[in-house]
Amino acid sequence: MTSRLRVGIWGASGYAGAELIRLGLGHPGIELVHLGAHRHAGERIDAVLPAFQGWLPGSFEPLDPARARACDVLFSCLPHGQSHDALAPLVGQVRLIDLSGDFRLRDAATYAAAYGHAHPCPEQVDRFVYGLPELARDRLRGATAIANPGCFATACTLALLPLAREGLLAGEIPLAAVTGSSGSGATPGPGTHHPVRSQDFHAYKPFRHQHEPEIEQALADAGGEGFRLALVAHSAPFVRGIHVTAFVTLPEPLDEAAVQAIFRRHYEAEPFVRLRDKVNVAQVRGTNLCDVAIALRDRSLVVTAVIDNLMKGASGQAIHNFNLMAGFDETAGLQALPLGV
Amino acid sequence: MTSRLRVGIWGASGYAGAELIRLGLGHPGIELVHLGAHRHAGERIDAVLPAFQGWLPGSFEPLDPARARACDVLFSCLPHGQSHDALAPLVGQVRLIDLSGDFRLRDAATYAAAYGHAHPCPEQVDRFVYGLPELARDRLRGATAIANPGCFATACTLALLPLAREGLLAGEIPLAAVTGSSGSGATPGPGTHHPVRSQDFHAYKPFRHQHEPEIEQALADAGGEGFRLALVAHSAPFVRGIHVTAFVTLPEPLDEAAVQAIFRRHYEAEPFVRLRDKVNVAQVRGTNLCDVAIALRDRSLVVTAVIDNLMKGASGQAIHNFNLMAGFDETAGLQALPLGV
Amino acid sequence: MTSRLRVGIWGASGYAGAELIRLGLGHPGIELVHLGAHRHAGERIDAVLPAFQGWLPGSFEPLDPARARACDVLFSCLPHGQSHDALAPLVGQVRLIDLSGDFRLRDAATYAAAYGHAHPCPEQVDRFVYGLPELARDRLRGATAIANPGCFATACTLALLPLAREGLLAGEIPLAAVTGSSGSGATPGPGTHHPVRSQDFHAYKPFRHQHEPEIEQALADAGGEGFRLALVAHSAPFVRGIHVTAFVTLPEPLDEAAVQAIFRRHYEAEPFVRLRDKVNVAQVRGTNLCDVAIALRDRSLVVTAVIDNLMKGASGQAIHNFNLMAGFDETAGLQALPLGV
Amino acid sequence: MTSRLRVGIWGASGYAGAELIRLGLGHPGIELVHLGAHRHAGERIDAVLPAFQGWLPGSFEPLDPARARACDVLFSCLPHGQSHDALAPLVGQVRLIDLSGDFRLRDAATYAAAYGHAHPCPEQVDRFVYGLPELARDRLRGATAIANPGCFATACTLALLPLAREGLLAGEIPLAAVTGSSGSGATPGPGTHHPVRSQDFHAYKPFRHQHEPEIEQALADAGGEGFRLALVAHSAPFVRGIHVTAFVTLPEPLDEAAVQAIFRRHYEAEPFVRLRDKVNVAQVRGTNLCDVAIALRDRSLVVTAVIDNLMKGASGQAIHNFNLMAGFDETAGLQALPLGV
Repeated sequence: MTSRLRVGIWGASGYAGAELIRLGLGHPGIELVHLGAHRHAGERIDAVLPAFQGWLPGSFEPLDPARARACDVLFSCLPHGQSHDALAPLVGQVRLIDLSGDFRLRDAATYAAAYGHAHPCPEQVDRFVYGLPELARDRLRGATAIANPGCFATACTLALLPLAREGLLAGEIPLAAVTGSSGSGATPGPGTHHPVRSQDFHAYKPFRHQHEPEIEQALADAGGEGFRLALVAHSAPFVRGIHVTAFVTLPEPLDEAAVQAIFRRHYEAEPFVRLRDKVNVAQVRGTNLCDVAIALRDRSLVVTAVIDNLMKGASGQAIHNFNLMAGFDETAGLQALPLGV
Repeated sequence: MTSRLRVGIWGASGYAGAELIRLGLGHPGIELVHLGAHRHAGERIDAVLPAFQGWLPGSFEPLDPARARACDVLFSCLPHGQSHDALAPLVGQVRLIDLSGDFRLRDAATYAAAYGHAHPCPEQVDRFVYGLPELARDRLRGATAIANPGCFATACTLALLPLAREGLLAGEIPLAAVTGSSGSGATPGPGTHHPVRSQDFHAYKPFRHQHEPEIEQALADAGGEGFRLALVAHSAPFVRGIHVTAFVTLPEPLDEAAVQAIFRRHYEAEPFVRLRDKVNVAQVRGTNLCDVAIALRDRSLVVTAVIDNLMKGASGQAIHNFNLMAGFDETAGLQALPLGV
Repeated sequence: MTSRLRVGIWGASGYAGAELIRLGLGHPGIELVHLGAHRHAGERIDAVLPAFQGWLPGSFEPLDPARARACDVLFSCLPHGQSHDALAPLVGQVRLIDLSGDFRLRDAATYAAAYGHAHPCPEQVDRFVYGLPELARDRLRGATAIANPGCFATACTLALLPLAREGLLAGEIPLAAVTGSSGSGATPGPGTHHPVRSQDFHAYKPFRHQHEPEIEQALADAGGEGFRLALVAHSAPFVRGIHVTAFVTLPEPLDEAAVQAIFRRHYEAEPFVRLRDKVNVAQVRGTNLCDVAIALRDRSLVVTAVIDNLMKGASGQAIHNFNLMAGFDETAGLQALPLGV
Repeated sequence: MTSRLRVGIWGASGYAGAELIRLGLGHPGIELVHLGAHRHAGERIDAVLPAFQGWLPGSFEPLDPARARACDVLFSCLPHGQSHDALAPLVGQVRLIDLSGDFRLRDAATYAAAYGHAHPCPEQVDRFVYGLPELARDRLRGATAIANPGCFATACTLALLPLAREGLLAGEIPLAAVTGSSGSGATPGPGTHHPVRSQDFHAYKPFRHQHEPEIEQALADAGGEGFRLALVAHSAPFVRGIHVTAFVTLPEPLDEAAVQAIFRRHYEAEPFVRLRDKVNVAQVRGTNLCDVAIALRDRSLVVTAVIDNLMKGASGQAIHNFNLMAGFDETAGLQALPLGV
């Protein structure tokens, strides 16, 4: 595995794209050959992403299908709703890892309800494997098209996956999920205006977040049934991270040791999941880790989980999927330790 | 009501105390005559609280019961566990408003479980009225001793109070409650160390926060029964504010208009509660307001509520209670608009 | 002075405008009768400024000269470059307080160099008094048009004013001035995007900030001569505040007590200037105060000064000017204590 | 260079120590064999530094000279004033890189003035090479004891080093230097208490910061003479980073191209210095880079420079020195790209 694969990135100038560039430059099996950014085509990369001065002398390119097809793997960080048309012609012609929500939901009606419009190419969705390695590792090995999970979806699914597998999800499950400001992307807007955001906290999209059906689909794939999620998203004034607090009523009595054993059984071999006594967003920042902790009172179980939304919630997980797709060690390019502070 | 009452504050050098000083100086019916601070006795007030330079020329005093008895009203901001002994000898001798948790829980066993020790003077607890004006306005008018509610307790109770009154609480009710760093007080500690706190978010004390039984008691006082809370507290990197997200499963089908009508009926006459489409911590900062919003899907109701923890969650509410106790207009000294940014 | 003046605000929906609304609602001599906001005309005020729900039931109006003329005083918070044309027709017809930079610089060439275009109505500039009360109190009393100083200009001028009056400015004077993010206004942009701003610090516009000539003019008005400023502005990740560090080489030897005496002499009667051992942005937040401190080594003097940029650096100072203009007590509406935290 | 050196760290539990652990684990030539932390001896490393769970199974050890002597290289992150006694017995017995200020100042009187006490072992100071690679690369190659520069000292010296070498420093040079909160270390204190720090900015130690003579010594070593620094340190509410603004009056007229050429000549071969149009703290975060920019007006030159205080200002530079000392590639273990956000 000494030679490098030729890798392209579409949507390379946003936060997920820049994170992929950062990870790609440090990955032993990646050669970045095509960095496409529609709005910044022709501009110097280090003019758009000035932190990278000295590493990337070139310029962003247009989104060129021919250039994409010449890659071994193409990552797409295009926005939701734009990946459909851009990627559909490429399926089967270049290995794809799509970070948008466009190819995640297999049910057309669910997609339409979540995203507000009919899917333009529903027949393509089944060609994508949902890229949560802890759920679908075997199918991701050698996959040719991968739909990388959403940030909230990753944290929430990992909080509940062992319970889904053990048939321990039932009834309505409230999820209080909290995101940092980088989750809103690189384009300034009212919700990320520093004077407001830096001292605010608020809930948004109760019951209406598009990741809710995505999590339900993933948990059903894991064997969960007879449950329904109640996801409330929240905005907090940190930059990187997702924190989720899940409230589960166990359908049968279990003591804490038994629940710990369940989580341990499903996660002890996972390279990017840590079971903790408590979880902190700061302790996974800059890493591809998901930290998980539990607390139990009678049948009431609280599961908390944290990720770095740009890493395990986006580009880090995309690299993990790349490693599975291309046969690299799963942790290649993802061994950075948390910054701590 | 043109003359000013002689007011003392014990524990005047902490955040709640400083906020009481700030509010007291702007209140038409308050003359601050005794500012007691054990650790800072003898030090200039503006050396300990330098922001106040120019307003307060004097020094902090020791906690002197004789000086306290000479006041018309004494606010106490002593820490939990220290108010018992300090205030018990003063009950009946000076009107008291205690901001600690020492006189809030009427059931001795509940107190012992929440605070980890037996109450030293349980016979005194019943002499204190629990000071949530929206719950107990009539008893607070003319009260001689008031136990000011906790910060989480205020926000959570106000999120659920109309439902408790209407018999709409049932089963287990998850509460995801989030606090800013000022909730930890003025003494530096690992959890409020800037390098860590400013980019962290984490849950703490799941099922074990001492405000959980306090909220349950308040909601039972309002008529709630057959319910149990599952409170998870969280630390966020803003300074002032509490945000709570409550997940309620309604025992009977109601549409959103009906739920809105219930909240409106119980809150429309309240001077410090606003019903909103959505709530933001930043929009109540510096005020005594509690903003409340609801969202409904089938029988699943999400109620969000926000307060400024140092105002409605502590000193602002204490002034509100002072106004009720002493016969002032309820909003006296509390009319400041939110800073916004 | 018991009756209220009829007051209008143009540009009422931005940060300075919202701050004027907040201060105006609490001012005993102000009745807000016309809130003009070009982009938001016709929208409910509390939809644009949601924190104000409950205080302001009406809607923003267009910028209507007839409505403005019907006011006793009009505050204008229009952007630099838009006040010229909007206010010139109103000079002499309604008392004006303009918060933009359009009528501050009396020298046309200086204006053109600072703002990049020729002044469209230079003949009007002399009708405006530069509104720094510590510099021009007597001319501001009863003035009919006031050019409210810039935020950096206020802090820097107050750091150096006593030295200018005493002839102690000489040579080049470096000024390292630091602003919070609210100084960029309410419109989101790359420089105030939370993911970047919250962990960044950077200098901008070295030698080229438009407040540099404004400060030089003010200090010359105070008697300063033979000096030149070297202003470097910086962006920091707090919200409210300006901090300035001025490096002065004294033209003659003075000991620290002598310098302290000079500052005390010029500031001890000022209601909004405090001399401190050290200054902190946090200790003036929410107030109209300017805190000043000095340190001396041989002939090298460092003066530090802080203000809240939305208060003493904008709307608070505008209210101070209103009080002087209309004959109110100077501190009317401006007595709020600092929030501290 | 395939074998790893046996490396120890004293003071391994603080921020500089944890950063050395993080860098050491990723360095191809380092095997961490002794992690000494006085206060935490015997505690699990991942209990003290929980972010590292999964990487470091062992426990902190006492500061054991025998264990230290068995290392190839010992890094010391002990506090100022504690390194003297701890390290003096080890000089010549193990290669040392000391991150404290104890062995930086060669003049005993200067040391005493800066640190407030006489140096206990002045005869040892000359055995340490001052570890700024851009200043003393040749002496650092193969050195046996290195005094790693201070954080402010690194940024300030690098801002002025080319000018010192060219004889362009003269007169008094104001330096406005700004640090993030991690510069205060891992122990909570009033200055890093989140409720205060997160919205504050203030100057401290004008003319009295202990790095002022350290910078003067380094610049004199580079050939500078006839100048004096006026350093004012400031605390800002970001976590990682130093920003310095230096005001230089050039002794002779030079145009901007000439000054740029001077900086380019001295820095173009440096692996960790980037010349920029402007510098931002955020763009070096997590890296060992120092970004430098200049602006000129007549003879007035403003130089701005930024570093990550825990990297180029402490542990990253220590690794750079390790690489020089031990013959590794200078950038070994230091190739991480900036996080950006």
